[in-house]
Amino acid sequence: MKDWLDEVNWNAEGLVPAIAQDYRTGRVLMMAWMNREALALTAAEQRAIYWSRSRGKLWRKGEESGHVQKLHELRLDCDADVVILQVEQLGGIACHTGRESCFYRVLENGVWRVVDPVLKDPHAIYHAGHTHE
Amino acid sequence: MKDWLDEVNWNAEGLVPAIAQDYRTGRVLMMAWMNREALALTAAEQRAIYWSRSRGKLWRKGEESGHVQKLHELRLDCDADVVILQVEQLGGIACHTGRESCFYRVLENGVWRVVDPVLKDPHAIYHAGHTHE
Repeated sequence: MKDWLDEVNWNAEGLVPAIAQDYRTGRVLMMAWMNREALALTAAEQRAIYWSRSRGKLWRKGEESGHVQKLHELRLDCDADVVILQVEQLGGIACHTGRESCFYRVLENGVWRVVDPVLKDPHAIYHAGHTHE
Repeated sequence: MKDWLDEVNWNAEGLVPAIAQDYRTGRVLMMAWMNREALALTAAEQRAIYWSRSRGKLWRKGEESGHVQKLHELRLDCDADVVILQVEQLGGIACHTGRESCFYRVLENGVWRVVDPVLKDPHAIYHAGHTHE
Protein backbone atom coordinates (compact mmCIF):
# COMPACT_ATOMS: atom_id res chain seq x y z
CA MET A 1 0.00 0.00 0.00
CA LYS A 2 1.30 3.42 -0.94
CA ASP A 3 2.16 5.60 2.00
CA TRP A 4 -0.17 8.62 2.32
CA LEU A 5 2.92 10.82 2.59
CA ASP A 6 4.03 9.66 -0.86
CA GLU A 7 0.83 11.05 -2.34
CA VAL A 8 1.77 14.59 -1.39
CA ASN A 9 3.37 16.60 -4.17
CA TRP A 10 6.28 18.12 -2.31
CA ASN A 11 7.84 21.15 -3.98
CA ALA A 12 11.46 21.46 -5.09
CA GLU A 13 12.49 22.16 -1.48
CA GLY A 14 10.53 19.15 -0.23
CA LEU A 15 7.85 21.33 1.33
CA VAL A 16 4.10 21.79 1.16
CA PRO A 17 2.07 24.83 2.29
CA ALA A 18 -0.07 24.14 5.36
CA ILE A 19 -3.08 26.29 6.18
CA ALA A 20 -4.33 26.28 9.77
CA GLN A 21 -8.00 27.05 10.31
CA ASP A 22 -9.94 27.33 13.57
CA TYR A 23 -12.13 24.22 13.58
CA ARG A 24 -15.00 26.04 15.29
CA THR A 25 -15.13 29.50 13.71
CA GLY A 26 -13.51 28.75 10.34
CA ARG A 27 -11.11 31.66 10.77
CA VAL A 28 -7.87 31.09 8.89
CA LEU A 29 -5.15 31.54 11.49
CA MET A 30 -1.92 31.22 9.52
CA MET A 31 -0.12 29.53 6.67
CA ALA A 32 3.23 27.88 7.18
CA TRP A 33 5.23 25.07 5.57
CA MET A 34 5.77 21.40 6.30
CA ASN A 35 8.33 18.90 5.13
CA ARG A 36 7.66 15.17 5.15
CA GLU A 37 8.78 14.74 8.75
CA ALA A 38 6.69 17.67 9.96
CA LEU A 39 3.55 16.34 8.29
CA ALA A 40 4.16 12.83 9.60
CA LEU A 41 4.65 14.18 13.12
CA THR A 42 1.58 16.40 12.84
CA ALA A 43 -0.55 13.36 12.11
CA ALA A 44 1.18 11.18 14.70
CA GLU A 45 1.03 13.70 17.53
CA GLN A 46 -2.26 15.32 16.48
CA ARG A 47 -0.81 18.81 16.78
CA ALA A 48 0.62 21.21 14.20
CA ILE A 49 4.33 20.79 13.61
CA TYR A 50 5.76 22.94 10.84
CA TRP A 51 9.09 23.32 9.11
CA SER A 52 10.64 26.69 9.85
CA ARG A 53 12.30 27.84 6.63
CA SER A 54 14.06 30.71 8.39
CA ARG A 55 15.52 28.55 11.10
CA GLY A 56 15.89 25.40 9.01
CA LYS A 57 14.39 23.09 11.59
CA LEU A 58 11.15 21.61 12.87
CA TRP A 59 8.84 24.10 14.52
CA ARG A 60 6.57 22.57 17.12
CA LYS A 61 3.97 25.32 17.12
CA GLY A 62 3.47 26.47 20.68
CA GLU A 63 6.68 24.96 22.04
CA GLU A 64 7.67 28.30 23.50
CA SER A 65 4.41 30.25 23.59
CA GLY A 66 2.15 27.44 24.72
CA HIS A 67 -0.06 28.28 21.77
CA VAL A 68 -0.30 24.70 20.57
CA GLN A 69 -2.61 23.86 17.68
CA LYS A 70 -4.47 20.63 18.40
CA LEU A 71 -5.35 18.80 15.21
CA HIS A 72 -8.95 17.95 14.48
CA GLU A 73 -8.81 17.19 10.77
CA LEU A 74 -6.25 17.09 7.99
CA ARG A 75 -7.14 17.56 4.33
CA LEU A 76 -5.29 17.50 1.02
CA ASP A 77 -6.21 19.47 -2.09
CA CYS A 78 -6.89 18.23 -5.62
CA ASP A 79 -3.34 18.80 -6.82
CA ALA A 80 -1.99 17.25 -3.61
CA ASP A 81 0.27 20.24 -3.09
CA VAL A 82 -1.50 22.05 -0.22
CA VAL A 83 -2.79 20.72 3.11
CA ILE A 84 -5.28 22.30 5.48
CA LEU A 85 -5.53 21.64 9.19
CA GLN A 86 -8.63 22.14 11.27
CA VAL A 87 -7.22 23.04 14.65
CA GLU A 88 -8.10 24.05 18.15
CA GLN A 89 -5.89 27.05 18.85
CA LEU A 90 -4.86 26.91 22.49
CA GLY A 91 -4.70 30.39 24.05
CA GLY A 92 -6.69 31.80 21.14
CA ILE A 93 -3.54 33.31 19.63
CA ALA A 94 -1.83 31.98 16.50
CA CYS A 95 0.27 35.00 15.49
CA HIS A 96 3.63 35.95 16.95
CA THR A 97 2.32 39.54 17.15
CA GLY A 98 -0.12 38.40 19.84
CA ARG A 99 -3.15 38.40 17.56
CA GLU A 100 -5.65 35.63 16.95
CA SER A 101 -4.73 35.32 13.27
CA CYS A 102 -1.72 36.31 11.18
CA PHE A 103 -4.14 37.84 8.66
CA TYR A 104 -4.85 41.05 10.53
CA ARG A 105 -4.32 43.57 7.73
CA VAL A 106 -7.06 44.46 5.24
CA LEU A 107 -6.57 46.29 1.97
CA GLU A 108 -8.54 49.53 2.11
CA ASN A 109 -8.18 52.29 -0.46
CA GLY A 110 -4.72 51.12 -1.43
CA VAL A 111 -3.44 50.74 2.13
CA TRP A 112 -2.94 47.64 4.29
CA ARG A 113 -4.80 48.64 7.43
CA VAL A 114 -4.44 46.76 10.73
CA VAL A 115 -7.93 45.81 11.86
CA ASP A 116 -7.41 43.18 14.58
CA PRO A 117 -6.36 43.84 18.18
CA VAL A 118 -3.26 42.55 19.93
CA LEU A 119 -4.65 40.16 22.54
CA LYS A 120 -1.39 39.68 24.41
CA ASP A 121 1.92 41.54 24.44
CA PRO A 122 4.41 39.48 22.37
CA HIS A 123 7.05 40.13 25.04
CA ALA A 124 4.82 38.35 27.50
CA ILE A 125 4.44 35.45 25.09
CA TYR A 126 8.10 34.90 24.19
CA HIS A 127 11.31 35.08 26.10
CA ALA A 128 13.64 38.02 25.48
CA GLY A 129 15.56 37.79 22.24
CA HIS A 130 12.82 36.03 20.30
CA THR A 131 10.51 37.86 17.95
CA HIS A 132 9.15 34.79 16.21
CA GLU A 133 8.87 31.16 17.20
CA MET B 1 3.63 56.89 -0.49
CA LYS B 2 4.76 53.31 -0.78
CA ASP B 3 2.62 51.20 -3.06
CA TRP B 4 0.67 48.46 -1.22
CA LEU B 5 2.03 45.98 -3.76
CA ASP B 6 5.58 46.82 -2.68
CA GLU B 7 4.78 45.71 0.85
CA VAL B 8 4.18 42.13 -0.28
CA ASN B 9 7.15 39.82 0.17
CA TRP B 10 7.17 38.11 -3.20
CA ASN B 11 9.08 34.83 -3.30
CA ALA B 12 12.07 34.10 -5.55
CA GLU B 13 9.68 33.48 -8.46
CA GLY B 14 7.86 36.75 -7.80
CA LEU B 15 4.80 34.95 -6.43
CA VAL B 16 2.71 34.89 -3.28
CA PRO B 17 0.30 32.14 -2.13
CA ALA B 18 -3.35 33.23 -2.25
CA ILE B 19 -5.99 31.46 -0.18
CA ALA B 20 -9.62 31.79 -1.30
CA GLN B 21 -12.26 31.43 1.39
CA ASP B 22 -16.04 31.54 1.04
CA TYR B 23 -17.01 34.85 2.64
CA ARG B 24 -20.24 33.44 4.02
CA THR B 25 -19.41 29.94 5.26
CA GLY B 26 -15.67 30.33 5.89
CA ARG B 27 -14.93 27.20 3.88
CA VAL B 28 -11.47 27.33 2.33
CA LEU B 29 -12.04 26.75 -1.35
CA MET B 30 -8.52 26.63 -2.81
CA MET B 31 -5.00 27.94 -2.69
CA ALA B 32 -3.28 29.25 -5.78
CA TRP B 33 -0.54 31.74 -6.59
CA MET B 34 -0.43 35.37 -7.67
CA ASN B 35 2.27 37.53 -9.17
CA ARG B 36 2.25 41.28 -8.85
CA GLU B 37 0.07 41.78 -11.90
CA ALA B 38 -2.45 39.16 -10.75
CA LEU B 39 -2.78 40.73 -7.32
CA ALA B 40 -3.11 44.22 -8.77
CA LEU B 41 -5.81 43.03 -11.17
CA THR B 42 -7.61 41.13 -8.40
CA ALA B 43 -7.93 44.35 -6.42
CA ALA B 44 -8.78 46.45 -9.45
CA GLU B 45 -11.42 44.12 -10.87
CA GLN B 46 -12.67 42.81 -7.51
CA ARG B 47 -12.43 39.20 -8.67
CA ALA B 48 -9.77 36.53 -8.16
CA ILE B 49 -7.09 36.53 -10.84
CA TYR B 50 -4.25 34.09 -10.23
CA TRP B 51 -0.96 33.26 -11.91
CA SER B 52 -1.01 29.79 -13.39
CA ARG B 53 2.42 28.30 -12.77
CA SER B 54 1.71 25.34 -15.08
CA ARG B 55 0.60 27.50 -17.97
CA GLY B 56 2.82 30.44 -17.20
CA LYS B 57 0.13 33.05 -17.64
CA LEU B 58 -2.61 34.94 -15.85
CA TRP B 59 -5.56 32.80 -14.84
CA ARG B 60 -8.80 34.70 -14.62
CA LYS B 61 -10.61 32.25 -12.37
CA GLY B 62 -13.90 31.36 -13.99
CA GLU B 63 -12.98 32.61 -17.44
CA GLU B 64 -13.96 29.26 -18.95
CA SER B 65 -16.11 27.66 -16.28
CA GLY B 66 -18.04 30.75 -15.27
CA HIS B 67 -17.02 30.00 -11.68
CA VAL B 68 -15.82 33.50 -11.00
CA GLN B 69 -14.74 34.43 -7.47
CA LYS B 70 -16.06 37.87 -6.57
CA LEU B 71 -13.81 39.60 -4.08
CA HIS B 72 -15.23 40.80 -0.77
CA GLU B 73 -12.05 41.35 1.24
CA LEU B 74 -8.31 41.00 0.81
CA ARG B 75 -5.93 40.45 3.72
CA LEU B 76 -2.18 40.12 4.16
CA ASP B 77 -0.41 38.09 6.84
CA CYS B 78 2.18 39.22 9.39
CA ASP B 79 5.16 38.20 7.25
CA ALA B 80 3.51 39.78 4.20
CA ASP B 81 4.07 36.60 2.23
CA VAL B 82 0.54 35.15 2.08
CA VAL B 83 -2.76 36.77 1.07
CA ILE B 84 -6.28 35.61 1.77
CA LEU B 85 -9.35 36.48 -0.24
CA GLN B 86 -12.88 36.43 1.08
CA VAL B 87 -14.89 35.56 -2.02
CA GLU B 88 -18.32 34.85 -3.30
CA GLN B 89 -17.91 31.67 -5.35
CA LEU B 90 -20.25 31.89 -8.32
CA GLY B 91 -21.77 28.53 -9.16
CA GLY B 92 -20.73 27.16 -5.78
CA ILE B 93 -17.85 25.25 -7.36
CA ALA B 94 -14.19 26.23 -6.97
CA CYS B 95 -12.47 22.96 -7.89
CA HIS B 96 -11.79 21.72 -11.42
CA THR B 97 -13.10 18.32 -10.29
CA GLY B 98 -16.56 19.85 -9.97
CA ARG B 99 -16.49 20.04 -6.18
CA GLU B 100 -17.15 23.03 -3.95
CA SER B 101 -13.62 23.04 -2.55
CA CYS B 102 -10.29 21.64 -3.68
CA PHE B 103 -9.83 20.24 -0.16
CA TYR B 104 -12.11 17.22 -0.53
CA ARG B 105 -9.80 14.51 0.83
CA VAL B 106 -9.47 13.77 4.55
CA LEU B 107 -6.73 11.72 6.18
CA GLU B 108 -8.34 8.74 7.87
CA ASN B 109 -6.34 5.82 9.24
CA GLY B 110 -3.42 6.56 6.96
CA VAL B 111 -5.50 7.00 3.80
CA TRP B 112 -6.64 10.13 1.97
CA ARG B 113 -10.36 9.51 1.66
CA VAL B 114 -12.62 11.51 -0.68
CA VAL B 115 -15.46 12.87 1.43
CA ASP B 116 -17.07 15.58 -0.72
CA PRO B 117 -19.42 15.00 -3.66
CA VAL B 118 -18.90 16.07 -7.26
CA LEU B 119 -21.56 18.72 -7.80
CA LYS B 120 -21.13 18.96 -11.56
CA ASP B 121 -19.42 16.76 -14.13
CA PRO B 122 -16.12 18.42 -15.07
CA HIS B 123 -16.80 17.64 -18.73
CA ALA B 124 -19.90 19.78 -18.47
CA ILE B 125 -17.86 22.58 -16.90
CA TYR B 126 -14.98 22.70 -19.35
CA HIS B 127 -14.71 22.29 -23.08
CA ALA B 128 -13.17 19.11 -24.46
CA GLY B 129 -9.42 18.97 -24.13
CA HIS B 130 -9.26 20.88 -20.88
CA THR B 131 -8.95 19.19 -17.53
CA HIS B 132 -7.97 22.27 -15.58
CA GLU B 133 -8.55 25.95 -16.10
